[in-house]
Amino acid sequence: MVVDPWLTKDPFWPLSEREPERLKEIDVIAITHAHIDHAAGVDEMVRQNENVFVIVQSEFGHSLEARGMKNIIRTNFGGTVELKGIKFSMVPASHTSSWMDQTGKREIFGTAAGYVIEFENGEKVYVSGDTGLTGDMKFVVSDFFKPQISILPVTGLFAMEPDQAAYAANVIGSKYVVPSHDFPKEVSLAADPEAYRKLLKRLPVLNSYKKVETFLEIMKRDYPHIETVYIPIGETVVIG
Amino acid sequence: MVVDPWLTKDPFWPLSEREPERLKEIDVIAITHAHIDHAAGVDEMVRQNENVFVIVQSEFGHSLEARGMKNIIRTNFGGTVELKGIKFSMVPASHTSSWMDQTGKREIFGTAAGYVIEFENGEKVYVSGDTGLTGDMKFVVSDFFKPQISILPVTGLFAMEPDQAAYAANVIGSKYVVPSHDFPKEVSLAADPEAYRKLLKRLPVLNSYKKVETFLEIMKRDYPHIETVYIPIGETVVIG
Amino acid sequence: MVVDPWLTKDPFWPLSEREPERLKEIDVIAITHAHIDHAAGVDEMVRQNENVFVIVQSEFGHSLEARGMKNIIRTNFGGTVELKGIKFSMVPASHTSSWMDQTGKREIFGTAAGYVIEFENGEKVYVSGDTGLTGDMKFVVSDFFKPQISILPVTGLFAMEPDQAAYAANVIGSKYVVPSHDFPKEVSLAADPEAYRKLLKRLPVLNSYKKVETFLEIMKRDYPHIETVYIPIGETVVIG
Repeated sequence: MVVDPWLTKDPFWPLSEREPERLKEIDVIAITHAHIDHAAGVDEMVRQNENVFVIVQSEFGHSLEARGMKNIIRTNFGGTVELKGIKFSMVPASHTSSWMDQTGKREIFGTAAGYVIEFENGEKVYVSGDTGLTGDMKFVVSDFFKPQISILPVTGLFAMEPDQAAYAANVIGSKYVVPSHDFPKEVSLAADPEAYRKLLKRLPVLNSYKKVETFLEIMKRDYPHIETVYIPIGETVVIG
Repeated sequence: MVVDPWLTKDPFWPLSEREPERLKEIDVIAITHAHIDHAAGVDEMVRQNENVFVIVQSEFGHSLEARGMKNIIRTNFGGTVELKGIKFSMVPASHTSSWMDQTGKREIFGTAAGYVIEFENGEKVYVSGDTGLTGDMKFVVSDFFKPQISILPVTGLFAMEPDQAAYAANVIGSKYVVPSHDFPKEVSLAADPEAYRKLLKRLPVLNSYKKVETFLEIMKRDYPHIETVYIPIGETVVIG
Repeated sequence: MVVDPWLTKDPFWPLSEREPERLKEIDVIAITHAHIDHAAGVDEMVRQNENVFVIVQSEFGHSLEARGMKNIIRTNFGGTVELKGIKFSMVPASHTSSWMDQTGKREIFGTAAGYVIEFENGEKVYVSGDTGLTGDMKFVVSDFFKPQISILPVTGLFAMEPDQAAYAANVIGSKYVVPSHDFPKEVSLAADPEAYRKLLKRLPVLNSYKKVETFLEIMKRDYPHIETVYIPIGETVVIG
């Protein structure tokens, strides 16, 4: 299972994980929104693995189907899709969704969403996708779904700043919180340094690691009862 | 008054109700969003009844006007439109709105909404339209408007699953709740079986009645203080 | 600093304030959404003042850049932009954003937003932009940001009606609330009467002052602990 893959020119995803034989092991791709760093290359992944299912917001799915993509499962807020024993429930996100076509024209592509993913053992993970602080984190995610793990963006500007993210983590009340949306501290640390160098010309995100550090400090100081689990890019961490 | 008409190829709406003389009796049409099952054929209804007013979200209204439609009343979240003594207040919905034109191209058509409709006697009905669970059901609909009746989608995938809908019904706190968005259990039960057969090729909704049953069970078990009123397709029920 | 300028054909903005030398004094423009009365003429303002920065929601910014506009700072919900010591935090709004191009075609232009603006002394002003009542006024604006001043639309139809706005003011809990979105009571009172006369053909807003009066009455009657500060069009008021 992969959430928000970024295959094409992704500077971070380990290259060895992007080999065709590895892509064929993926059963389900769930996408939160169409921005390049969450969805670029999805069509390529489906071409290389015709058994994969792609869960997306309904209008986004229509747009992908209009481009010839197959294996799309369209859903919308409030809906739950069950695949291989795992339940994907689409929840609101305070964000947007658009896609730039090859002529450079940007189109609205559906609506940004998050997921609460429930595994066969009943454990739930909230993958917020990019989002600002919003009341549905309390009312929908926390009160109704009660996830044990929350993965939240913490690097600001296009989603929650560190202080908002820490506040959100506390309100949601998951036992574990995982900060996300960070970028490598140095070009040489990227899985694909050349792709990272190009990205940095458009998005100056080299200092996003500082926001992660701020988030970790706030969590430690204000919310020590929550276990904050930082997963360095390309690494694997076992939670719980 | 009609909310979310589906004139063209609607498999459910009794054919006798769609005769021109019946359509002419309609004073107001309020539309929650542009998906086919909520809005197809609205232009035809206005052509056959030039005295009808159509209340829609502002950008959706611009799109309809650009197609030559008349009698549009554009509004937006927070606004109240009063017509013939009835107040239509537009409230948020956690859903989307798009429309496929005759060339097959799908366009975003405004933004999905719900309505709180207040009658002359002060009774209020919340017609959520399609929506996922969202905090504005509590904060806007329940706390501010306090409707006596709530009509909620309960059949999942593109809107609330039965458990979310039951949870929502309890939080909103209306005395009566009416489950919606179900489809006939068998093709032969549809008002227009041929149209239903065609629809089923695109949307496999034959089993949606099971979700209604689940909803009714949850309401009976967990929220017996709420009167759940199921209105079979094509039938009429007097509430209260 | 200017929020939501309406340069071209704005009937209200004093003409003397729109002279090139005055426009050159502006450091930052923050836009809540693309509707004409909040954004028309922004490109002209940037042409006349190449030192100004324009803060907008990300997709709206892409659309402006595609039209050749410079000095755009794109952000999104949850993000904070700091310029000249002032922090602009983008918060949700329950509204929409679109723009009509010169051929008359209307396009979705980003997503509507509000701002919490924090000055160097720590004082915060919530500029909601056009919005309906929404739970994020409580959860994001009040609970997280706690602004001392709130500027809210009160004239209904396309944003909060007076009773919703008063309810919102109380929930947000700012010490001061400023009603907005009103229009001159008479054509002759407009800064540009000819522009106002043309506008009135499209938007019959001559009676919006009555909604302001209703809002002021509700605030006085139900929420006398909040200081409601009405700023007549074209005038200046010192708060606090």
